Formats: sequence, structure tokens, C-alpha cells
Amino acid sequence: MADFPKITLLAGGVGGAKAALGLALSQWRDHLSVIGNIADDEEFHGLWVSPDIDTLTYTLSGRINRQQGWGLNGDTSQVLNGLKTLGCDSWMFLGDQDFATHIYRTEQRRKGIRPSAIAQDIAWKNQVDIPILLPTDDVVQTRVSTAQGTLSFQEYFVREQCRPDVTAIEFHGAESAAATPEALAAIAGSDLIIIAPSNPLVSIGAIMSVTGIREALAASPAYCMAISPFIGGKTVKGPADRMLAGLGMQPSAATIADLYQDFLDALVIDQQDAHAAADLRQRGLDVLATNTLMTSDEEKRHLMDTCVSFAFSHIAEASA
Amino acid sequence: MADFPKITLLAGGVGGAKAALGLALSQWRDHLSVIGNIADDEEFHGLWVSPDIDTLTYTLSGRINRQQGWGLNGDTSQVLNGLKTLGCDSWMFLGDQDFATHIYRTEQRRKGIRPSAIAQDIAWKNQVDIPILLPTDDVVQTRVSTAQGTLSFQEYFVREQCRPDVTAIEFHGAESAAATPEALAAIAGSDLIIIAPSNPLVSIGAIMSVTGIREALAASPAYCMAISPFIGGKTVKGPADRMLAGLGMQPSAATIADLYQDFLDALVIDQQDAHAAADLRQRGLDVLATNTLMTSDEEKRHLMDTCVSFAFSHIAEASA
Repeated sequence: MADFPKITLLAGGVGGAKAALGLALSQWRDHLSVIGNIADDEEFHGLWVSPDIDTLTYTLSGRINRQQGWGLNGDTSQVLNGLKTLGCDSWMFLGDQDFATHIYRTEQRRKGIRPSAIAQDIAWKNQVDIPILLPTDDVVQTRVSTAQGTLSFQEYFVREQCRPDVTAIEFHGAESAAATPEALAAIAGSDLIIIAPSNPLVSIGAIMSVTGIREALAASPAYCMAISPFIGGKTVKGPADRMLAGLGMQPSAATIADLYQDFLDALVIDQQDAHAAADLRQRGLDVLATNTLMTSDEEKRHLMDTCVSFAFSHIAEASA
Repeated sequence: MADFPKITLLAGGVGGAKAALGLALSQWRDHLSVIGNIADDEEFHGLWVSPDIDTLTYTLSGRINRQQGWGLNGDTSQVLNGLKTLGCDSWMFLGDQDFATHIYRTEQRRKGIRPSAIAQDIAWKNQVDIPILLPTDDVVQTRVSTAQGTLSFQEYFVREQCRPDVTAIEFHGAESAAATPEALAAIAGSDLIIIAPSNPLVSIGAIMSVTGIREALAASPAYCMAISPFIGGKTVKGPADRMLAGLGMQPSAATIADLYQDFLDALVIDQQDAHAAADLRQRGLDVLATNTLMTSDEEKRHLMDTCVSFAFSHIAEASA
């Protein structure tokens, strides 16, 4: 392991942002890069909205609305009310200060600036110095097939509140999307890669849908650890459990092991799921059973610190 | 004169919006169309801002900030503060509810919808049923030459607060701009055309810079009356007096008569300038000297009603 070990976190959604914050609050802050999910991105009112990347940035900056887990603390909704008066859809909540981010991002994109550079610029201007990397600078968008037809991720997640049964998930544009050199370099150059307790399909799966990312994970010499987003067969937040069920999979640590099998070295599961540890170990995985619920900042820091210590002790053991 | 006489107002800036409101509050409301000025339009933060048209719409809807004469009553500035945090210029004040208008307009323009149709749509959604017509659907932008170099109108007017001496005014794009059929039809089909007490150079001059508009005014059978924006050699608001002086002209009713000489039938001047009436009449103009300061809504209504009555009595006289 390097003298100054590098850690890369793959993070999507609120679970991903919590894990990123946990690492940012730990002794490993300066070692960290985060690869976020851009497949939830969508245009609203002609503006390019990037919910997962913004949630990461706002969480790491401390500006996040903690009750919601997304959006800005104390934000108002004058712009959205105005757009409603003008006859626009308003089911996608966008706060006024948040609109500034979307306006700025859209203007920068129209100037031809790389989305990766824009995300980094917005992070810096929010006093976030942790690298927030995009998997691709191309447009990749999750499409959810349901009995109601094909929906964008925000239509499914926000407008329909995850009610429709999901029969298929597609990442539109992923095949022709090129991975960013920054994401590939972070994956290849890390000692430890952590997969956050995010939705394995529409967060982590979306990141890995970009051509080259999954292959880079498999080829990386890094120790690769995932934190299961399931506690007792349920997610803390979000529709991962119902989505998996719709696609004929169990919302369990074993499914996480299946989905990440080509690159996974270790799996962190909740204490409630400790019974699954033996089977997972039999599959050759290192297993840590601990409290994975991250409510307070201290719980976030503690979980991520515990995960990193566990990983580093196994890396040291393997190289001894 | 027709049984149902039609009135078209050429209006720019706060003076134009006041005259429009005066007519809207009068018995002539249903007879009215307003041609606004689009040469103050400018892109800010990637959004298309149309200050004069918005001032007209907001004034006629009653949503205007009356203290300022522009912007929306009670509007907040969360978006602009956010953009400032992101390193953007914030000298052009844009309120949050106002941003909704700019976001909507920009999205509609990008969809390829005619700017005239967008302006009308925004007016309707603000409960304004008076036709607000654009002189052109093309982009025409005022450029102000000063010792500091060439400035856009908003740079000159808002950022530099009209301080630089003006040596020339250009309407970029005017030569190749096509007048809208709506504006040409309104001018050709009116019984009375009123030129609001707006800046004769950058408001009315800008409207008339569009190829075909000035010719249509000269060719129209309508009785054409201008209200001088000067009272005792000064403007009520705005830089018209200083701009004229910079270009070697006097800020006087006589100058208004000169600038509009190819189509003007009547000039309304303030009582304070009544001494100029004889000279103006000698030039063949009908002259009404009255109180032209429009502070209250009642004063606006009264002035515009007085102007229309004066015009209609002269039209009736001529056809008798």
C-alpha cells in the first residue's frame, strides 16, 4: 500500500452522499475522490439539473437540507412558483438558490465547458475541495420501463414517487459514452475503492454502465469494498428493494455480491444481516458486519472509518 | 374614423409603461395595442432578458414594483445571490420571480417559438389581455458608444448608471431585422398612433430602427401624436436629456418634433413648456400643453384620456 493511500468512493443518491460525508469527516478526507452518478440528470425548464452531483456537493459543503437529504437548507421556491404561473410543470422541486446552480451549469455547458470541469468548479465555489469526478462527460440517462411506459428517472422517482412496478432499466447513451480520464485514473490509481450503500441498479449500476468503468474496476489493483444498502431486506431510503424485486432479485447482501462479483473483495453488511456472513465468506469475500445505519454525522464518520480500517488491515495482511 | 377606433401606442421604458397603463385604465382599453422595445434585450447567465417588454407586462398586470418602476413587487434575490456565490456578475438585478420569466422565455426561444408569440403568452399568463407587440422577432440590440468604449444598453444604463458621455448610438442587427406582421398591421390599421413619453433615441428610436417600422408610421393614415418626455428641458426619469446633449441636440419638444417629423401630426407638451407651442404650431403640428407628469394612476389615466380626446377631436374636425 502506498505511503499516502488513495481512496475512491463510488456514490449515488443520498446514501452515497452520506458515505462521502463520513469519509470527509474522517482522517481520510485528503485521500478521497468521489465518483458520482450523472444518469439522473435531466433538463427542466431548459436548465440542466444534476441531482446526484448536487446532492454530493451540497452535502459535502454543509449546505444540504438535512431533513430531506437533498436541496439546500432554508431554500425558497419563488422561481418554481413563477414557472407554475407560466403554466410549467412543477413536480420536480427546485429551490431558488438551487436554481442558481442549474442556471450556472447550463450556461457553462452551452459554452462548451466539460461537465467534469463544471462540477469541479461548482464544488470549489461551494468550498468543497474533495474531487467530485463524473464517470463521463457525455449524456447518459436512466430510463425506467414500467407498466405506465418508459419514464425518465426523475419522472419515476419524483413525479410517480416510485409507485410503478419496474420491468427494465436502461442507461440511454451509456454504450457510446466515454469514461472521463479522471474517473479512470482514480479507479486505476486507488488503493481502496468503496462502493457506497447506494442503489446498485440506478446509482452504482448507472456509473458502471459507462463504457470502461466496470472494466477499470475489475482491472484495478485496488482493494474493492462495497457497503450493502440493505438492512433486513429493506433499503433505508429509496426504491432499490422494490426495483430489485421487480427485476426478480432479492434485496440482500448476496445480491450485492452477485451484482459486483467481477471486482468485489469485501462486503460490509449490517449487524441485522450477520447471518449471511458465512455464505459470503464462502464466496471468497472479506465480510464486515457492523451498524450500517448512518443517522448522525458521527455515525457516518464512524462507519466509514471502520470500513477503511477493516480494508487497510486486509490489504496489509495480504501484502505481508 | 372607424366606429371602433384602434389605438396603437409605441412604448419603451418606464415612461412607456406608464402611458400604456394610463390607456389601459381609460375607456380606450379595448381599443389598444402596444408596440414595445426589444433593443434593450440582453443575455444574462445564459437567459434572455427583455427588460422593456417585461416592464410593460408587469405594469399592465399590476405586479410591477411601483417604487422602482421595474421588477416585481416584493420580489426576492436568492437566485442572484446564488449566482454571485458562483462567481457571476450581479450588477443586473434580476429578482427570483422575474427569473421565472427569463427561464421560461429562454426555454421557449430555444424551442424555436417566435419571440412575439412568447411575449403574448407571458402577457396572457400575467392576466394581461392587451396585445403587446414586438417590432421584430429578430435580435436588435442597442450599442452605446462612449469614451469607455462600446457598451450594451444595460451595461450603459444599469452597470455604468448612465455616467459615460454618449457619442453615438447604434442598433445592432436593425438593418437585417424584419418587422413583425402584427406591428405593421397595428400601425397601418390604427386610427390613432401615440408615441409615449419614452426616450426618443433608445426606446422609440430603437423601435423605429427596425426596417419597415418608420416607413409604416409615415405611410399610415392614422393621426400620429407624440407626448414629449421633457419637462422644462429635463426628463422625468432616464438619460434621454444627457444622451441628446451628448449627440448635440437639445432636450426639448422641438427636438421631438424634429426626430418624428416625417410622421407626426400632434405633440403633447408639458404646461411648463407651453411657450414652445406657437413655434410648434407654425411647423404644422397640433399642440396640446397640459400636465404630462404621471405620478398616480389617476394622473396616468387622465393624461392619456386627455390625449385621446384631443386627437379624436382633431381627427373628427379634419374629416368634417
